[in-house]
Amino acid sequence: MSELPPPLNPPVRLLMGPGPSEIHPRVLRALAANTVGHLDPYYLSLMSDMQGMLRTLFRTQNPMTMAISATGSAGMESTVVNLIEPGDSMIVCVNGVFGERMVDVAGRAGANVTRVDRPWGEVFEPSHLKEALAKAKPKVVGIVMAETSTGALQPLDEISNLVHDAGALFLVDAVTALGGMPVEVDKWKIDAIYSGSQKCLSCPPGLAPASFSPAALEVVLQRKTKVQSWYLDVSMLAKYWGQERVYHHTGPINMTYGLYEALRIILEEGQEQAFERHASNHRALKAGLAAIGIRYASNEAHTLPMLNAVHIPDGIDDMKVRGALLNRFGIEIGGGLGAYKGKVWRVGLMGHGSRQGNVLAFLGALEQLLAEQGHKFEHGASIAAANAEYAGPKSR
Amino acid sequence: MSELPPPLNPPVRLLMGPGPSEIHPRVLRALAANTVGHLDPYYLSLMSDMQGMLRTLFRTQNPMTMAISATGSAGMESTVVNLIEPGDSMIVCVNGVFGERMVDVAGRAGANVTRVDRPWGEVFEPSHLKEALAKAKPKVVGIVMAETSTGALQPLDEISNLVHDAGALFLVDAVTALGGMPVEVDKWKIDAIYSGSQKCLSCPPGLAPASFSPAALEVVLQRKTKVQSWYLDVSMLAKYWGQERVYHHTGPINMTYGLYEALRIILEEGQEQAFERHASNHRALKAGLAAIGIRYASNEAHTLPMLNAVHIPDGIDDMKVRGALLNRFGIEIGGGLGAYKGKVWRVGLMGHGSRQGNVLAFLGALEQLLAEQGHKFEHGASIAAANAEYAGPKSR
Repeated sequence: MSELPPPLNPPVRLLMGPGPSEIHPRVLRALAANTVGHLDPYYLSLMSDMQGMLRTLFRTQNPMTMAISATGSAGMESTVVNLIEPGDSMIVCVNGVFGERMVDVAGRAGANVTRVDRPWGEVFEPSHLKEALAKAKPKVVGIVMAETSTGALQPLDEISNLVHDAGALFLVDAVTALGGMPVEVDKWKIDAIYSGSQKCLSCPPGLAPASFSPAALEVVLQRKTKVQSWYLDVSMLAKYWGQERVYHHTGPINMTYGLYEALRIILEEGQEQAFERHASNHRALKAGLAAIGIRYASNEAHTLPMLNAVHIPDGIDDMKVRGALLNRFGIEIGGGLGAYKGKVWRVGLMGHGSRQGNVLAFLGALEQLLAEQGHKFEHGASIAAANAEYAGPKSR
Repeated sequence: MSELPPPLNPPVRLLMGPGPSEIHPRVLRALAANTVGHLDPYYLSLMSDMQGMLRTLFRTQNPMTMAISATGSAGMESTVVNLIEPGDSMIVCVNGVFGERMVDVAGRAGANVTRVDRPWGEVFEPSHLKEALAKAKPKVVGIVMAETSTGALQPLDEISNLVHDAGALFLVDAVTALGGMPVEVDKWKIDAIYSGSQKCLSCPPGLAPASFSPAALEVVLQRKTKVQSWYLDVSMLAKYWGQERVYHHTGPINMTYGLYEALRIILEEGQEQAFERHASNHRALKAGLAAIGIRYASNEAHTLPMLNAVHIPDGIDDMKVRGALLNRFGIEIGGGLGAYKGKVWRVGLMGHGSRQGNVLAFLGALEQLLAEQGHKFEHGASIAAANAEYAGPKSR
């Protein structure tokens, strides 16, 4: 390399895709705070305080609640590889890309995987699992709470009872859910759960909040074989994040600053307020899209508040619309993954990005682009419908 | 949690431990730059430019040169788990904590591990490996270039020839070396190498630069079994970092900003200039410490320029000195690990932290603390010796 690459100069984007989402300016500033050592008394106390905030958000008393030093996918891998030993039976519920990924991860951990499939956009009822549970006698059942590829919200409470009645551990992907809606780890008896920093927590990608129940941790400590990943071995991570603070790896100091600030912002706002904000902006977006003839990809009874996967209208060019949104308006939305490629848009209203102004900016820009491509709709209808939703029932 | 934890407010430290090292202020600012999406055209181009800079620093043409989205220890795991299939023979050279860790990581990957040991502080000569190579017929030989626990610098050139003559792949830990001294991936025929962002690159911890030779990548592509880690699977990462840019995990955007800026700063200074700066500050520190009776822990012929592991003088209280350095002077140095616990200090002069002012501040503070604990030495001698070293041969 004889020449230097250009100076860092990222364009300003409004992040309304499936994540990373809008980052709160205070989180960006926190990332730039002066670095201390990973065993500095200040950092150890920051880790403890962050664990406390994560317990609050996960609604759990689990001592082993922390952040994996990598992105959400490593969070998935951490829960699977710790609980599974070669030959163990595991059921994975698949109704989108991330259930599919869990099958792959579990297979690599040596699990004897039974997959239970539902069509994309649908969710699982307890009845869908009964037969597999009886046949597979699983050690672990894995499921995705908020399927980012389809926008479907999976209810967990009843399925958890069924899983525990079958003597299995309950493993949940909450990557997109955490911070945008209640995630009740203790109430729903979740044994292992992971999330990502870059969705409703309004922090850049790079950390995976996770929590293990005492029962799950006991399973890890009683393993016959070592956890296949040294980096993700919860028996060692428990000593690093626990009272002993035994050196394991070098903690990602500045990313931890960012996540700390992000969690603090959520607790300052109040969890219930944050959840209601997500729900309200979702309702407004949904009303706006409906008014211009755009339907949700997932079952309407189970749409996620923070991730809106919608059908691309007939005759509309996916890449053209997304390209113009990005290049003319600076708005990023996501395309479809897997079976939904070219057929679905994914519009994120996550964390700091879940704001009225963003809903209206997106709808306004989309109307302009759809009109250019000849889509028939009443101009202004999406904005009117969204604003009617914000105004509340009295206005209608 | 009824109360919010305190606002983020890290104390100002001078980071002279084994890492994280001093972060360049421009890198901190880069971390706070506005986030874009992980598939944004800007981010993809930034990834490419960063790969180019990493190739320059690793002195390699390897297309598969990138940063693992986790800390240095995950870098180690990534090289091992991609090259090793269950039952494969691997030799690991152990003369400190990180060789020891590699044995653990390799065992978890299913390797049939042959360890070759040298005393802590010593390095390996080709002759130390001949017998093991003949016996174990390894697929991979792993070695640590810069053993952060002992401060020993491992020469690699001749050993690489021996390893390749035996038909094995050569795997190198360059966590502490990269950016502070030449790391000649192509010239030394290294097949898999990893580093960490938080040492001589002057970036916070969280990323692990890594490179795989075409031969190593071919071994990965020809595996009979899947790589046990989904997150670290180089066959998938190659598609994410290659021309295809196939979505794998969500890249850690802002950490990548930081590493990009950090690499750019090194190339602006010039690699040779940066290496000479590390060497010069090391010589000055060494001269200063010698003048007050402090000896190096590793063989004097093989001391690392960026990590100075030294014996704690008799009668001096390790924790008292390190505590006072931190609390009174804001200076962090490292204690000993493993066999060196309580016996050794580790003084880092890494990246942006390798500066004359830091050498002198540390020596001055150390003199004050040693005097308080009754250590006998000529006061001011360490500063005089360091400054004489900086002044060059003419002054002596």
